[in-house]
Amino acid sequence: MSACVLYHFAFDPGSRAARLALGEAKLAFTETPVRPWEDGCPVADLNPSGMPPVLKVEEAGRTLTLCEPAAILGWLEDRSAEPFLLPADAADRAETRRLVGWFDRRFTDEVNAVLLHERMEKPLLRLGAPEARALRAGRESLRAHLTMLEHILAARDALSGRRMGQADIVAAAHLSVLDYFGEVTWATWPGVKTWYMKLKSRPSFRPLLTDRFPGVAAAAWYADLDF
Amino acid sequence: MSACVLYHFAFDPGSRAARLALGEAKLAFTETPVRPWEDGCPVADLNPSGMPPVLKVEEAGRTLTLCEPAAILGWLEDRSAEPFLLPADAADRAETRRLVGWFDRRFTDEVNAVLLHERMEKPLLRLGAPEARALRAGRESLRAHLTMLEHILAARDALSGRRMGQADIVAAAHLSVLDYFGEVTWATWPGVKTWYMKLKSRPSFRPLLTDRFPGVAAAAWYADLDF
Repeated sequence: MSACVLYHFAFDPGSRAARLALGEAKLAFTETPVRPWEDGCPVADLNPSGMPPVLKVEEAGRTLTLCEPAAILGWLEDRSAEPFLLPADAADRAETRRLVGWFDRRFTDEVNAVLLHERMEKPLLRLGAPEARALRAGRESLRAHLTMLEHILAARDALSGRRMGQADIVAAAHLSVLDYFGEVTWATWPGVKTWYMKLKSRPSFRPLLTDRFPGVAAAAWYADLDF
Repeated sequence: MSACVLYHFAFDPGSRAARLALGEAKLAFTETPVRPWEDGCPVADLNPSGMPPVLKVEEAGRTLTLCEPAAILGWLEDRSAEPFLLPADAADRAETRRLVGWFDRRFTDEVNAVLLHERMEKPLLRLGAPEARALRAGRESLRAHLTMLEHILAARDALSGRRMGQADIVAAAHLSVLDYFGEVTWATWPGVKTWYMKLKSRPSFRPLLTDRFPGVAAAAWYADLDF
């Protein structure tokens, strides 16, 4: 048995991926919400990047400090006797790893760095009102990524291959933050919607649906399982 | 037995990480050099990102297409009976995964996107002369990252823990490209220099030392094992 504490920020996609993966592993953990942009954030002493998620695990008399989603998802995979969120098949594993990297870099750079900057970071850091031009550019990028996901999900049930895995967890973590802010027009992407509906109905997703962002109400359908 | 073809660009750090890992695995592979910014680059049809590295593997009657370093390094790990470039110890694995992600994001954004853009992408894409201000900023970022590596390597022999692993391969791949352009002032970082010297002496490193960038001579010490 191990005692786990997760340091996370509720609207950080990487933190959400860690919470979803821990939920899927049915591993009990204590949540320590952090605000990484504030002085004295405990994550500054745990992770050289200063960013959540960080999972501290007390196990067999020592403390493991797992920094960043890759270390947390990797550790969960390592401790499982069977393939857990990485599929068994070599081609599915390659595709899962490719897509996890895609969200870490391409989606983060092209969508989050624009759209979440305007909708989330600006109010948090008091950087002023969102700019219409940036919002338009971020939404256009999001549409391109959703088109790609729709195309993938027309050919198979899950991003990670035959069944839900790391790529689905990571993609859903990203989309769920944007969904809170009402940025995902689900009706346009029926395949992505069906896929997301299935993920959203999983017990691991429930805690995310109760997150609230200060000063911004969730989209009307955010916590609705039949949206 | 499997037949492998690696599509790579010699001065792309991710492509270099793949070549080093394949070399460490002592897996024979055919190199197909590509120029991803040119029309008709074969990688455009293989990887949705359009970028190298891509490894095609013919194995057991089917073709695996492994896109991006994570899929290639992951596949090499999966096919090995023993831990290969991911250490056996859980804390070392977490640190290795953290550092691989650090280079993929932080180092890429803060150093490569500035310094390699000025020194490498501008001549390749005919974008004009490097800007002194950007070069200064990129070099300052590089110093900060090297300071961090020097600190880590004062405490242990390898970035991945007790012995060389994925984090060392990925870090050396990045630094080796910058070293070609003479951007690493080794004398300032004795711990990093000793570590790099050991990696550079490995057979897996040799092919990288013969790479030549059109129109730019390698730093005098680039291919020198005792620099």
